[in-house]
Amino acid sequence: MSPTERSTVRRGAKRAVADRAQLHAVLDAGYVCHLSTVVRGAPLVLPTGYGRVDDTLYLHGSTGALSLRTAASGVEVCLAVTVLDGLVYARSVFHHSMNYRSAVVHGTAVPVTDEAEKLAGLRAITEHLTPGSWDHARQPSRKELAATAVLAVDLAEAAVKVRAGGPVDDEDDVAADRAWAGHVPLALVAGEPVPAADLSPGWVVPSHVTRVADR
Amino acid sequence: MSPTERSTVRRGAKRAVADRAQLHAVLDAGYVCHLSTVVRGAPLVLPTGYGRVDDTLYLHGSTGALSLRTAASGVEVCLAVTVLDGLVYARSVFHHSMNYRSAVVHGTAVPVTDEAEKLAGLRAITEHLTPGSWDHARQPSRKELAATAVLAVDLAEAAVKVRAGGPVDDEDDVAADRAWAGHVPLALVAGEPVPAADLSPGWVVPSHVTRVADR
Repeated sequence: MSPTERSTVRRGAKRAVADRAQLHAVLDAGYVCHLSTVVRGAPLVLPTGYGRVDDTLYLHGSTGALSLRTAASGVEVCLAVTVLDGLVYARSVFHHSMNYRSAVVHGTAVPVTDEAEKLAGLRAITEHLTPGSWDHARQPSRKELAATAVLAVDLAEAAVKVRAGGPVDDEDDVAADRAWAGHVPLALVAGEPVPAADLSPGWVVPSHVTRVADR
Repeated sequence: MSPTERSTVRRGAKRAVADRAQLHAVLDAGYVCHLSTVVRGAPLVLPTGYGRVDDTLYLHGSTGALSLRTAASGVEVCLAVTVLDGLVYARSVFHHSMNYRSAVVHGTAVPVTDEAEKLAGLRAITEHLTPGSWDHARQPSRKELAATAVLAVDLAEAAVKVRAGGPVDDEDDVAADRAWAGHVPLALVAGEPVPAADLSPGWVVPSHVTRVADR
């Protein structure tokens, strides 16, 4: 993972995982990334979709969107993907915590100009939401492609943190036995597909939609 | 909501909601915020817990943590809370989307030095995870309080975006009727509480834990 000074996890180093497969797994498990840029010296963070191809993360947006214009001009980006796995109840409020898998990526967002890579990036972003979506729906027109900016971020500089399991309490608090301790798992669960109001009758929900995986 | 130039939603203005009650609702519905700061000219974004008291958002961390040290020195912060509500399948890949509620706050994180406010901030952060947690568990010791930095962010400058419902397709694609269209709701669902491995026998899971609300 080649941690740099910046991506080396300083606090809670025991939760850092220097493993590329685990970085990919966290990125693949999330739906939304939080993309941070510096705009006129001030921080800006916005939620956005993304997709991954090997060690490249793709972002997209309107060609006019503020954060993407900034990134396209060469400013650095930092983005985080966080999957919340549970709430952790300790004997002390001090040790209350959350279970999560988190990836933080530092890099430069490079505008994708090659049309084939642009399509591959958009495909990755769409397939990231639900595999099978890209081939089922209408592909982008030239006009739609021109209106869409695609940015590539190399995943070379990244850090993963994972917390799992129950609380870690002070010995005194365990001995005192004055509070319940444990954790509650949380998972993002998919409900029943809702057909569009203007969908013509006779459509069966396609299999890529019925099998949306809980994350 | 007094949107400034910066917090005015430029893209998708129809999704901006200039309503303070809705800002509070989004912040209260999330578990994790993504806190962005500028460190040596570069953006940094990290996931962290938070709590709200009226129009003040509280953050906490180790007194040594990088992002909080930066914020305490007066640098601006930007933070986002995003609640993912569903996946949206359009007839075209271009109009695929996600349903979400999102709040983005711009402000300065002010270190809380008053001990009563510091406790109130920590209480808000703990109660935000699960109401009832603070009173059930052991309160912070002087040593724990000294090791914890609490920061307050005024919610004056904020923007809310909400997307809900089904896809918005081009008329031509609706008429062509070549793809299924609709959405799949997503919700963060709580599982069964898991007692800590070292919990003494005889404990019943307390009611504030059994009633963790799905979000």
